[in-house]
Order: sequence, then structure tokens, then C-alpha cells
Amino acid sequence: MTQELNDNLKSGTAEYPLLSSVKSPADLKKLDVSQLPYLCDEIRRYLISSLSVNPGHFGSSMGAVDIIVAMHYVFDTPRDRIVFDVGHQAYAHKLLTGRFEAFANQRKKHGISGFPFPFESEYDTFVCGHAGNSISAALGMAIADLNTPGQEDRKTVALIGDASISGGLAFEGLNNASQNPNNLLIILNDNDMSIDDNVGALHRYLSDMSTSAGYNRLRFNVYNLFKKWGLIADKGKGLMLRFNNALKSLVAQQQNIFEGLNIRYFGPFNGNDVIKVVKVLQDIKDMKGPRILHLHTRKGKGFAAAENNPANWHAPGKFDPETAKRHAESRSENQPPLWQEVFGETLVELAVDNQAIVGITAGMSSGTSMNKMSRFPGRMFDVGISEGHAVTFAGGLAAAGKRPFVAIYSSFLQRAFDNIIHDVAIQNLPVTFCIDRAGIVGEDGVTHHGVFDISYLRIIPGMKIAAPMDSRTLRNIMAASLEWDGPLAIRYPRGKSDTADWKTPFEPVEIGKSRTLSETPGARIAILSVGPVGSDAAKAVSVLKEKGIVADHIDMVWVKPLDEEALRNVMNRYEAVVTVEDGTVRGGFGSAVDEWLDAHGAACKVINLGIPDNWVYQGTVPELRAECGYDTDGIVRAVEKLQAGLTENPA
Amino acid sequence: MTQELNDNLKSGTAEYPLLSSVKSPADLKKLDVSQLPYLCDEIRRYLISSLSVNPGHFGSSMGAVDIIVAMHYVFDTPRDRIVFDVGHQAYAHKLLTGRFEAFANQRKKHGISGFPFPFESEYDTFVCGHAGNSISAALGMAIADLNTPGQEDRKTVALIGDASISGGLAFEGLNNASQNPNNLLIILNDNDMSIDDNVGALHRYLSDMSTSAGYNRLRFNVYNLFKKWGLIADKGKGLMLRFNNALKSLVAQQQNIFEGLNIRYFGPFNGNDVIKVVKVLQDIKDMKGPRILHLHTRKGKGFAAAENNPANWHAPGKFDPETAKRHAESRSENQPPLWQEVFGETLVELAVDNQAIVGITAGMSSGTSMNKMSRFPGRMFDVGISEGHAVTFAGGLAAAGKRPFVAIYSSFLQRAFDNIIHDVAIQNLPVTFCIDRAGIVGEDGVTHHGVFDISYLRIIPGMKIAAPMDSRTLRNIMAASLEWDGPLAIRYPRGKSDTADWKTPFEPVEIGKSRTLSETPGARIAILSVGPVGSDAAKAVSVLKEKGIVADHIDMVWVKPLDEEALRNVMNRYEAVVTVEDGTVRGGFGSAVDEWLDAHGAACKVINLGIPDNWVYQGTVPELRAECGYDTDGIVRAVEKLQAGLTENPA
Repeated sequence: MTQELNDNLKSGTAEYPLLSSVKSPADLKKLDVSQLPYLCDEIRRYLISSLSVNPGHFGSSMGAVDIIVAMHYVFDTPRDRIVFDVGHQAYAHKLLTGRFEAFANQRKKHGISGFPFPFESEYDTFVCGHAGNSISAALGMAIADLNTPGQEDRKTVALIGDASISGGLAFEGLNNASQNPNNLLIILNDNDMSIDDNVGALHRYLSDMSTSAGYNRLRFNVYNLFKKWGLIADKGKGLMLRFNNALKSLVAQQQNIFEGLNIRYFGPFNGNDVIKVVKVLQDIKDMKGPRILHLHTRKGKGFAAAENNPANWHAPGKFDPETAKRHAESRSENQPPLWQEVFGETLVELAVDNQAIVGITAGMSSGTSMNKMSRFPGRMFDVGISEGHAVTFAGGLAAAGKRPFVAIYSSFLQRAFDNIIHDVAIQNLPVTFCIDRAGIVGEDGVTHHGVFDISYLRIIPGMKIAAPMDSRTLRNIMAASLEWDGPLAIRYPRGKSDTADWKTPFEPVEIGKSRTLSETPGARIAILSVGPVGSDAAKAVSVLKEKGIVADHIDMVWVKPLDEEALRNVMNRYEAVVTVEDGTVRGGFGSAVDEWLDAHGAACKVINLGIPDNWVYQGTVPELRAECGYDTDGIVRAVEKLQAGLTENPA
Repeated sequence: MTQELNDNLKSGTAEYPLLSSVKSPADLKKLDVSQLPYLCDEIRRYLISSLSVNPGHFGSSMGAVDIIVAMHYVFDTPRDRIVFDVGHQAYAHKLLTGRFEAFANQRKKHGISGFPFPFESEYDTFVCGHAGNSISAALGMAIADLNTPGQEDRKTVALIGDASISGGLAFEGLNNASQNPNNLLIILNDNDMSIDDNVGALHRYLSDMSTSAGYNRLRFNVYNLFKKWGLIADKGKGLMLRFNNALKSLVAQQQNIFEGLNIRYFGPFNGNDVIKVVKVLQDIKDMKGPRILHLHTRKGKGFAAAENNPANWHAPGKFDPETAKRHAESRSENQPPLWQEVFGETLVELAVDNQAIVGITAGMSSGTSMNKMSRFPGRMFDVGISEGHAVTFAGGLAAAGKRPFVAIYSSFLQRAFDNIIHDVAIQNLPVTFCIDRAGIVGEDGVTHHGVFDISYLRIIPGMKIAAPMDSRTLRNIMAASLEWDGPLAIRYPRGKSDTADWKTPFEPVEIGKSRTLSETPGARIAILSVGPVGSDAAKAVSVLKEKGIVADHIDMVWVKPLDEEALRNVMNRYEAVVTVEDGTVRGGFGSAVDEWLDAHGAACKVINLGIPDNWVYQGTVPELRAECGYDTDGIVRAVEKLQAGLTENPA
């Protein structure tokens, strides 16, 4: 026990005596196993206190505390590698690996990431913002170590949740886990309450049985019986493992995909019992070959309100740690709705009249507001974290006459890139992609910004892409799209939209038609924007006016097809152009304008504003837009720069 | 029986009496079931005859004949929907659905596609060039029909192979197949000989048992035994199905992922016994709920050479139908190797000296020449058709100190787009992506052209992208990349490379450095190319010279980073620029040049040549490049157009 811990404990004054003394996993290992429950309590108290004022992912982090403490207690990190999956559950890991002080600045600009991140700490082994990658990545590490002299004894543990493991990438990882020699340990953190309720009794029975003499005896008897009947020959261990798995699966009546994949299965055990988890990990850590340990945990464990309503406490925002009253609940009536709410409510409105409309989302039913569609039985499909399937499934629905609306976050839709091309666009199927969280998203950081969608969608032939500037345009395009054939993508950002008065009667929309928002005779510079950043462009026009610089502003609305009439006008009328978008400047809207102007021999000078060609980390949305240089100030600066380059008199 | 068939049979002269009389599945249904084996024979004879001169996918098409005949015989197509997976097995389907005459032109420009294609026939329900999409798409159709008044009785059948079903997308489809009511039938066409050899005896035993009284008696006994022991409660049908699956899986000792997913399982049966398949399909076609039928077939069935060496006969090219001698075998010694061979042999060369090098491919081990790496035990990983996993797995290997080379075809790498971003590029891991079949691939058509890779990769921060013009440069970049950090993509096309004398000593490479190939004092136009299309640009320079037009030529080699020094020189020296690439003009290399020139205030006129913004179908590579306008003639025309726009005297 460290001197500091002794002092802490003796004085009895420190708020977190154990936690504050653990500067690294080496300190953790000095604790007696009997002290670990107290450490877990301290971590939970700290998380409640910290996250109540500096919001983050609450429920899953609280549930995973005991597993994380046990892993660092048993394994020799960072030499042994822990690979998290969807790392927003990993707060306890940050606290135990030297980031206790830094944690107050988590998810803030220049602070630490809300996820494990390899550039931040040697304990963070892999990027883990998108679900389901841990098994594949950890398998790579485990195989690499086993094939590197001197590294063979390093251990790799993947910690994956029950939602992540249902995705195709995780399955591909599992499917390959027994193909090459490796000692990978996969820990399944299973916190799905609905599964628990269904089969809880059998689960517990099975769990107890796994280590009990009774179970072993039963197994032996049934095995012999089957052998006597000539159904199995005794060909060694492989068959026996398979037999155990089949028997367990039969008894559990549980969707256990590990059976048949030749991965040794242990559990389920209570993952919120840190002493039990330590014991199990010690038992199995030196075993050879791929293994899976199935642990049940409770989301929000240690905070009653979160335990009782886990979906609501996934990322609750600020809250009162005593009363559990959440700040978000006090949103006033006349505020503009979230963009996602404009989408969700409009879709419901349309679906009432059009029976062909169906809604599809991939594990983000409330995050996208697609859950509003669940009032229509059989017309809302949440397929889980399976973005590829979501899009191909939508293609099938469309091929059979439905009008699918697919709502997926921009950065997650990257996982369905080929499905959009191959299963929708080549066939020109009428699928409407409603791309939420497009552009900079803020605190979730580098893995979650919706940077690329404009660029990777506009290269697809026949794709229509709109980035409405306001909620009414979003609404109108959604309605109008029902008259169009072929795929359509509509992108909109995270957060609040522009007006509380958005629910106005539907108005017709022309595909590829821009709106000129300000036009002054004699203007020599035009600002072309797409999306809600158009409001920054509009502000820039005002700021510039005060400075005596005239710039016109066109809300292009559409990235594809571009409004060629407007561009022809721009080419003929202006000497310089600024393009503005909430997305990468590489291959994006601005690039499309460049291509068009070049193809038409335009002589305009052009500046493309947007997310530059480097990674953008966490911070608030305004901070990050300023960093990227496409907020109001950035647009003003770009126009001033172009203005300075114009000759004294118009050509 | 039709009059035509009667005549055919009576006369005894027609070569394909049954096949030539089947103009549609309606004709097929007029045959007696006992005639179907003869029809299958005729189809096979025709395929051997046709494919021996007009090459295509031979082995899988021969194996699937009986299943396809049985499906069209039992189901009411096109009202009932057959969804193929990797549709190059579907030739028999084309022959039976009105394309017997057109088949001679399959895979040719203006001919029919080598895959089912919805725009070609009402019998072709979905695009099926990329593996594993059939279950998701068919599930969409099955659910749509069940929810559409008057369509509830339409049936949907997905036909998927054992390689495709191991991919994540297929798993996501299976995982969702029991989530919503539907009557989807999945037929698993299992033609993997190695699985057969391993567990063949048990398979047959099980298959017979499935319908036998003995099996049912056994099932009943074991069920009662388990119930007596208190392991299962009698809660109805769901449990019983689960029990059957678990029992079958236990006995079969077979990787059966359907168990646990609540999909009724039938089989395995002999899928080359058309009468048996018809009988089974008739038995199960009207059952409710999702079902899977497991059929074993033999690749190349009916052609001994192909049955004995199925890997070799996947797509054999031209061959002698009598002797089975293949034309490809007679390739002379002094021919340039294939691009893939340059890659494969160079990688082996490098791997001898560098123990950190590992090779990964996704089901295309011989197609990419990655199989050459298998001489190093534990250093070559073919993960099956799991592109996403391949890339994330490579990320894990790289994170643990290995130097992974990932070889995947361009159009299939689209499926790993997010993995490249999230699991490699954000962490700047040193993974080398060797992108085979980049650009127009020819006869495989719209789903297989490598159109998009430049565009979707160059938007990723930190990605290095090279498109070498010749095999020596490919080789040199591969070697040099071992000294660089971060991800690198190298793209090269299908087919023959440029020289037989490619295996020269490695030379150093500078990242982002171009090569000026021709420079004439006074030239006003520059051609900037990347990749082997540079040879067309070089030819164009000669053709233009003969016409009295001077154009310089720079092989840019790198798409990212661009050679800024070269571009600055271009901007200052030339009045007009033509960019040439074997990829889409939207967001591609040309677009990158546009962005750079605009950002630097260049006044050059620019024409971007490449694959235009529309879908390109099948044909030979030269035909399709000509269609797209970036062959030698197209480049000449572009330069002439720019030349015509230049003022008489240089500015």
C-alpha cells in the first residue's frame, strides 16, 4: 500500500482516498482484492459528481466500472492490451491510468477525449468510436504478439458490449478468431435488460451449473448417451468443446453465436461483482486459444434513476446528483426543435398519408427520432448496429415498392458506403438517406464528426444530395422526395434547428434549385453555401457590409445536382467566390463548384471553406468551427482576402 | 408440352431440344419433373460449349444449374422473387428467362450482363455483384410484400453461397431475419469441398436422419430426457425448434450459424439432384416464417476437369470443351506479368528480409496473388469475404508492430471505407493498401469497375495515394513504403503490366514526387496523368506532335500528396491542363488538381478526363475507356479543344 493511500485512509478527509492514490495500474495492484469494491464505489461516486456538471456517457460507464477495475488488477497493462469497443464506457479506465486530474476536462477542447485514444495514453490501444471493431483489432494484436519473438506472452483482451457484438464486423472477427493460433480473450459486457428479463432464470441456472459438479456429471451422462447411440465419435477435444457449447445453448435457449465458432465460452457471471470477475479472470487468463467471457452488468449501476431508466441515462447531460433531476428536462416551450425532431415529426406526418413509407435506423432509434415512426406497426425497423444491412434492407424494401427513409448518423453511414452504391444507387432505387449529425458534432470528437458524407456521396452517379439551410426546407424536401425516383441524401447537423415555427404547410421543391439570399448591384464577390452554415454566411454578409465590403450570398441547397443556372450566373457576374460547407474541403461541395467552374472555363478566384484536410478533435461546435475557419469570422476573412486581390476597378 | 418442344424431340436434330423450347419459366412448368435432369444436362452442355469460346464464370454456374431449374419449376417467377448472391452463378437463370439467344453476347458491350441485373429482365430482382447482400435485400422484399395488400402471398427466395454467408453483411441479414414477420426462404448453396471432406460422413447421416423416423424418435427421446432432468420447460414451438437445431449442430459438428438465430433449418441435401430439390422446395415453399435450406453442390458439376480442380476453373477463360485444355495455359515466357503478379512477387521479395511484413486478403487470395505469401507460415491471412474485418484486423496487426499489406479489389474495398478511416487512418497506422482491379475492369461490368477509390481515399486526412504508371514504380513504392509511417494506398489495374523486365533492383522513392516525361520549349498545354493510363497520354503526345500540336506530359504518380512544386511549375508555365485518370472525374485526381489550382489562384483552363459521372457497364477495357473518353483519342481530342481556345500568341 502506498504512503499516500495510507495517509489518505488515516486522515479520512480525502473524498476519494483509494482512487486518488491510484496513479497507475501498478498502484491498483498494491490493493488487496477485498478493497476493490470500495474503489469501485469511489469511482462511481466520482463519475456521478463529475458527469453531473461536465456531461458525458453515464449509464454504460457506470455499468463497466467493476470489469475495468478487475481487468487492470489482473492483467499487466499496458504490456497486456485492453481493447475497448465503443469506448465511452471506459471512463473508469481513464481514471485508473493517470488521467484522474485530467478527467475534469474530458470531452473539452484541449482536454482529454471522451474515448480511449492511442495518442493520449499508452494504455489506450486502439480507436474505439464506432461499434464492433474490437474483436478484429484485438485479434490482429494477439496474432502479431504470438508471432513476434519476445512478445508471445503478452495478453490481449477485447471488451465488447452486447449491442456491438450483433454487428457484422464483430461477427467477421469472431468468425476468424479460431482460424489462426491466438490467445485472445473476449469479454462480452452484456447489459441488455430485456434479454435478462426473458431468460434470466435459465441464465442463472446455467451460470451456476458451469462450475458445478452437477453440470459436469450431466454433461458426462449425455455425452455417453449420445456416443452409445452412435451419434458422435470420440475424436478428441474439439468435439467435446462443441458438445459443451451445444448443450449450454440448448439449455439456455439463448442467442449465443459463439457456439459453432470454436471459441471457448465461460459464463455468464455477474460483471458488477468485482471480486468474482477478478477470480474468473485469474482462472482463465493464462489459458491458450480464443476464449469468450460473458458478463452481465447493469447500465447506470450505482445510481438508481439510471438503473431504472437506462435508455434515458445513456448521455443525460447535466443533472443534479442528489435528486437526479436533469437540466435537459427544463427545455422551454418556444425553443426551436432539434433537427432530428424536425425529421422525425415530418416523417410521421408524411407516413400518415403514404402507406408506402417505412423508416429504418441502425441502433439509433431515439438518437435520430426514428422512434416516432414506431406508432405505425410494422413500418419502423431498428436493425441494431448494422448500418450495412440497414441500407441493403432498405434497397430490398424499395425494390418491392416501399419508400424507405433511412436515418443514420453521418460518421456511421460511412460503414454503408458500398451498400449505398451497390444495393441502392446502381439500381436507382428510391431510398431517402436522412443523414443526422452531419458536420462538426462537438464533444464526441474525431470519430463522430460527420466530415465526409458530401464527398463520398457526390461521387456516386445518380445520387441527389441536399443540405438544407433551415428546418422548413428539410421538411419540404422530405415531402417532395416522394415524387422523385432514385436515391436522395439529406444531411443536417446535430443540435437545435433554426425556428420554433417550422411546421408550416409543405411547399414544392425543385431538384437542384438554389436560393439567392442577398444580391447587391455591383457586388464582385459571391458566397455560395450549403446547409445551416448559411446562417454564418448571412451574418458575414452583414459584418462585411459594415466594413464597406459588398458580398452576395446564395444558399445552393443542393450539392448534387448543382444549380447550373446559378453557377453560370455566378461565373458571369462575380470575380471571386467563397464556398462554405460543414464538411471536408477535399472532394466536397466546394470541390464540386471548382470542377464545374473549371469545366466551364470560369476565370473566378475561389476559396473553399470547410473542414480542412486534417483530423479535428473534441470541443464545442463553435470552438471547432472557428478552428476550421468556416464560422462567421472565417467567412469574413476569406471575403476580405479575395477583396484585397481584386483590381481597383471591375473588369 | 409446347408444339416446338414436341417438334424438337420428334425430329431429334435440335442440339438442345428442351432448353431451346423453354422461352420462359412458364414453358419450364409444362415439363414433367422426370424431364428436368435432361434439361439440366442440356444446360450444362450449352454452358460448356458457350463458355469455352465466350469466357465467363464456369465452375459455380455449372454447380448451380439444378437448384436454378428447381426454383423456377416450383416458384411462380417473376411474381415470386429469386434474389441471387454473387450472380455469376446465375447463367442457367438467364437461359431459362428468355435470354438463351442473347447469352452468346453475355459480358460483351451492348450484350447482356454476366450477372442478373434488374434493368435487363423482370426476373432479375436485385443487383448481385458484391457478395453477401442477398439475405438483407430479400428480407426487405419479403417484409414489404407481407405488408402490402394483395402481395402477401408473393414468395421471396435468396440463393447464397457458403463463401458469401460468412461475411458480416449476410450475418446482419440473418440476425435480423427473425426480428419481423416474414416468409423468407434462404437457400444455402454449399459447394466447399473441404468442408465436405471433413465431415462428409456425418453430414450424410444427418441429412438422411432429418426426414427419417429414426431421427424423429431419437429427438423425442432426448427431448423427454432433458425435460425429465429439468433442463427445459415445455414453452412451445420456439424451444422445440431451438432444441432441434442444437441437436443437429451437435451431431453434425459443423459450423452452423443458423442455430440460435431462430431460423428453421432444413438439410443438408444434394443440390445437384434436381428431382430431390424440387421435392424439398415443394414441401417447404408454403411454410410460414424464415427458413434456410442447406444444399450441397459440386463446383464445375458435369465437367470432370472443373470438378477435380474447382479453384482453377472459377473463371477459366477460353478452353477446349473436349480436352479441357485452357488457352491461358499457353502464355508465352516473355510476356509482361500481370499487375497482381508484380505485387505478389515483390511482396514475397520484401517479406524475406523484413519479418514484420504480413499479407491480408479477403477471399481473393489467388485473384490478388496474395497466395504467394503463404510460403511464410503465419504471415498470410485470407479472412474470407470480410473486407471490413480484413482492414481492421490489419490495423490491429499494425498497432502491434507488424507491417500489413492488404490486397483487395478496388470495388470490394468500398466495403471497408469506414474501417480505413476509423481503424487505420485516424491512428496513422502503417497499413499498405494494395488496390487491385482499380479503374475499368471490362467484362465483369458495373459492379466491378474500380471507379471510386481515388475519390473516397483522398478525402481521408493523412492518407498517401499512389497510382504508379509502370510495374517498376509499383515495386519501388512498395519497398520504399516500409520506411514511411501512416497508411498508404497503391492502386493498379486488372490485366497485364507494362514490361517483362520489371524485376530490377529497388530504387528510392520520394513521397509525392512526379516525373516529367516530355517537355518541349514553348509548350502551352500540359497533360497530367496518374497510373498506367499515362501510356495513353504518352501516345497522345506523339499523335499530337504529328498534328503539329505540342503538349507536355507529367506522370504525377501521386494523388496525395500532390507534387506542389510540379503544380506551381504547371501553373506558371502552361495556359491549359488536361488531367487523366482511370477513375471517376468526380472528386478524383483531376478534382484534386482543380482544388489546388483554384486555391493558388491559377488562371489555367482545365479539362478533367476519366470515368464520367454515370454508370459504365460491361465491355472490353479498350471499348469502355474509349466510351469514357480517356483513351489516346480522348486525350488528343481534349488537347485539341484546349488548343483551339488559346489565343494566337502566348500571353
